[in-house]
Amino acid sequence: MDNTFCHQSATALAKRLNAGELTSEDLVKSCFEAIRNHGDEAIFITLTEESALEAARASDKRRAAGIPLSDWDGIPVAWKDLVDIPGTPTTAASAVYENAASPDQPAVVYANCEKAGLISVGKTNLSEFAYSGLGLNPHFGTPVNPHSKENPCAPGGSSAGSAAAVAAGLVSLAIGTDTAGSVRVPAAFCGVMGFKSSQQHYDKTGVFPLSTSLDSLGIFAHSIEDLVTFDQILRGVTAATVPAAKLKAKIIVPTTIVLDDLEDAVASCFQKTLSALEAQGYEIEHKDFPIFSEVSQLFGKHGTLTVAEAATYHKDLLASPDAEKMDQRVRERMLTASQFTAQDYVLLQWERARLEQAVKDVLGDALLLFPTVAITAPLIAELEADDDLYIKTNLMSLRNTMLGNYLGMPGVSLPIGHDADGLPIGVLVSGPNATDVELLQQALSLQQNLSKE
Amino acid sequence: MDNTFCHQSATALAKRLNAGELTSEDLVKSCFEAIRNHGDEAIFITLTEESALEAARASDKRRAAGIPLSDWDGIPVAWKDLVDIPGTPTTAASAVYENAASPDQPAVVYANCEKAGLISVGKTNLSEFAYSGLGLNPHFGTPVNPHSKENPCAPGGSSAGSAAAVAAGLVSLAIGTDTAGSVRVPAAFCGVMGFKSSQQHYDKTGVFPLSTSLDSLGIFAHSIEDLVTFDQILRGVTAATVPAAKLKAKIIVPTTIVLDDLEDAVASCFQKTLSALEAQGYEIEHKDFPIFSEVSQLFGKHGTLTVAEAATYHKDLLASPDAEKMDQRVRERMLTASQFTAQDYVLLQWERARLEQAVKDVLGDALLLFPTVAITAPLIAELEADDDLYIKTNLMSLRNTMLGNYLGMPGVSLPIGHDADGLPIGVLVSGPNATDVELLQQALSLQQNLSKE
Repeated sequence: MDNTFCHQSATALAKRLNAGELTSEDLVKSCFEAIRNHGDEAIFITLTEESALEAARASDKRRAAGIPLSDWDGIPVAWKDLVDIPGTPTTAASAVYENAASPDQPAVVYANCEKAGLISVGKTNLSEFAYSGLGLNPHFGTPVNPHSKENPCAPGGSSAGSAAAVAAGLVSLAIGTDTAGSVRVPAAFCGVMGFKSSQQHYDKTGVFPLSTSLDSLGIFAHSIEDLVTFDQILRGVTAATVPAAKLKAKIIVPTTIVLDDLEDAVASCFQKTLSALEAQGYEIEHKDFPIFSEVSQLFGKHGTLTVAEAATYHKDLLASPDAEKMDQRVRERMLTASQFTAQDYVLLQWERARLEQAVKDVLGDALLLFPTVAITAPLIAELEADDDLYIKTNLMSLRNTMLGNYLGMPGVSLPIGHDADGLPIGVLVSGPNATDVELLQQALSLQQNLSKE
Repeated sequence: MDNTFCHQSATALAKRLNAGELTSEDLVKSCFEAIRNHGDEAIFITLTEESALEAARASDKRRAAGIPLSDWDGIPVAWKDLVDIPGTPTTAASAVYENAASPDQPAVVYANCEKAGLISVGKTNLSEFAYSGLGLNPHFGTPVNPHSKENPCAPGGSSAGSAAAVAAGLVSLAIGTDTAGSVRVPAAFCGVMGFKSSQQHYDKTGVFPLSTSLDSLGIFAHSIEDLVTFDQILRGVTAATVPAAKLKAKIIVPTTIVLDDLEDAVASCFQKTLSALEAQGYEIEHKDFPIFSEVSQLFGKHGTLTVAEAATYHKDLLASPDAEKMDQRVRERMLTASQFTAQDYVLLQWERARLEQAVKDVLGDALLLFPTVAITAPLIAELEADDDLYIKTNLMSLRNTMLGNYLGMPGVSLPIGHDADGLPIGVLVSGPNATDVELLQQALSLQQNLSKE
């Protein structure tokens, strides 16, 4: 990978913009140059170079006049192609919506970014309708994990293009969504920071749904400082409203499910991380976590909220001739919804409310820490060739993270190392529902402590 | 029916209490005397005479000392036996729960009534688990509609005992719940005022559920003034917080579904009511109401939220030998839940959100008015004898009201006359979701205008 401007954090770039060392126009130009140099056309579905450059020049004028819209005025950002941006179709990376009309209204989070002067460079690729954890896409191609050596590895999904764009230094910031792991998994596979919010943390108006109950917006970035600042911008609030969190010194490592069948490199990286945190004074408690096995049994018996809601949202499509245009793996997965009854769905919703509360009670004053994914990025070619391997690997890639969606937990995936092939490994720190702002503060402190080692 | 104290409104009785013309002890004694004289043992499941008299004497002492808890301190009230009251089991009128342990905590609405000094005389009978619109109960007997002549007529349900108790003047006030019509239908059949709130209007903590999405608390009373005051008490707020509503002069009469197959007497009473309101200056617009046919089609295709949620709530019971103890008609109805898929349920929830908004848009500044039930109270013996007639009559009795539950509408059923046999007829005035306080004001004005005729 070339060394690009956007291998730097947005925080660092904003400092240079504000110091007059860099213009937004230069920065945006460098993004598009990096995109061309990188050459992976599967990362972006839509690129908006012209409007981005125009916006960059307007930003530079504001800054020169002393009236920037925010410290981050002029910072480029990429959007998962589920987010409504007037002037571009929202394709959801589906051939069915490839030529959809451009939306009239921007998504609320997009509008909030415009208010802060951020500049959209384009919209990134994903697994069709965001319904896979590996990032494969038969229509728009599969973005290659920028850490691949000889053979292309999967970027993780569904927010594949967003994760790859940040990892390759094409942008410093990208937006994803996460319904079962679609931010945290590609963040781990691609070696970047990934923040998945609680479902209600951001206004999701104008974001194409997969599961209305579970969908969460999220961010890819190079640093947790970036996540903290960008979180405020996406919510349309100012830095002054962030309360200082009392830093937690206790970490619970659940020994149920999430530590099963770890690849050796994942296990040893995770162990090193725990040792490093212990050395920095964190109290680490390994603990049986029966809530996770309850969730797993619920999924096994009653299906998922996602399959019921996705199949309902796409019911007209699934019943139409256009269903042939879908990624057939996505289509088949959605069609399994018919196996589940109304009572299955109601039970999943009720048990969810109970178990969310149980998480709060069990965690108390502690953070929850476990490997984001049990494996490192698999080879794209193998996944494309073998349906059974695809299904098995997809479930494995989402196994740890999907517990968090059902349990309403916000989470941050942090890179903690690489396997022998240089493929990244991530650790996931999670907190109870609706503790997003605090969790980001805790993750920042965790990261600072880890970097001392 | 004897003329009892509790044929008077709570407002009238409270005036007499506050004027020193009556003591709460006398009033409560007269209630129990009326209950004994009336002799219908199917109205109450639990009577708490001793504690009621003790509470009445305490109330009288407070009033004598000049420190009544509210204007209504000392007023008797009856509770549908779904509401938790410490010291009595919550049976849900099921043989399965007949000997349930008494709850530790009172329902929030009950606690709010205690704070205002109201006195519980006992808990009333209902259709088992509140799952029928006619009020039949094979375990505890079926309360007889107090307006029956020779042959006992159904009281309507599910809040059968509460409606019958107020109609017979055994109490002035009774609490019901309404999931498809269970307050409004028995109010119409029994010739009393019935208020069904929006689902979120009252805190339902401590109330046995039928359908968590649709359950609403409600009130039976002799006057709308009573509904207005009692509404405040149940919410735990003071009269000072009730805003004056701008009175509406426009009424929409939907011509879709709810005017179909009206019994002649219902049709003519409804017509007279419209004429009377027109004479008082109301603008009446008969209007096609496609939202109702959409809802009806949704129910036909996708079932109901109630059946899915009730069958889920009672799943352990339905799978246990105790299922034999259930009202087999209720059991069979719940078992139909298995016909519906998770997608059916999700679609019902999503369409509900859309159609609730559509109601708001269509109604604008108007009230919605139609007959509460298309028929008058049917004969109990015929319903008991004939399953098909029971099913058909049950559906007919709930047909108009259940639209309101799905559409989130609060409603007030007002008595507007009788058929040739003296059986009462009700009219239902409804408003959009969460407009309860305003709707009560509008209903009050409507009633005042009707009584001028």
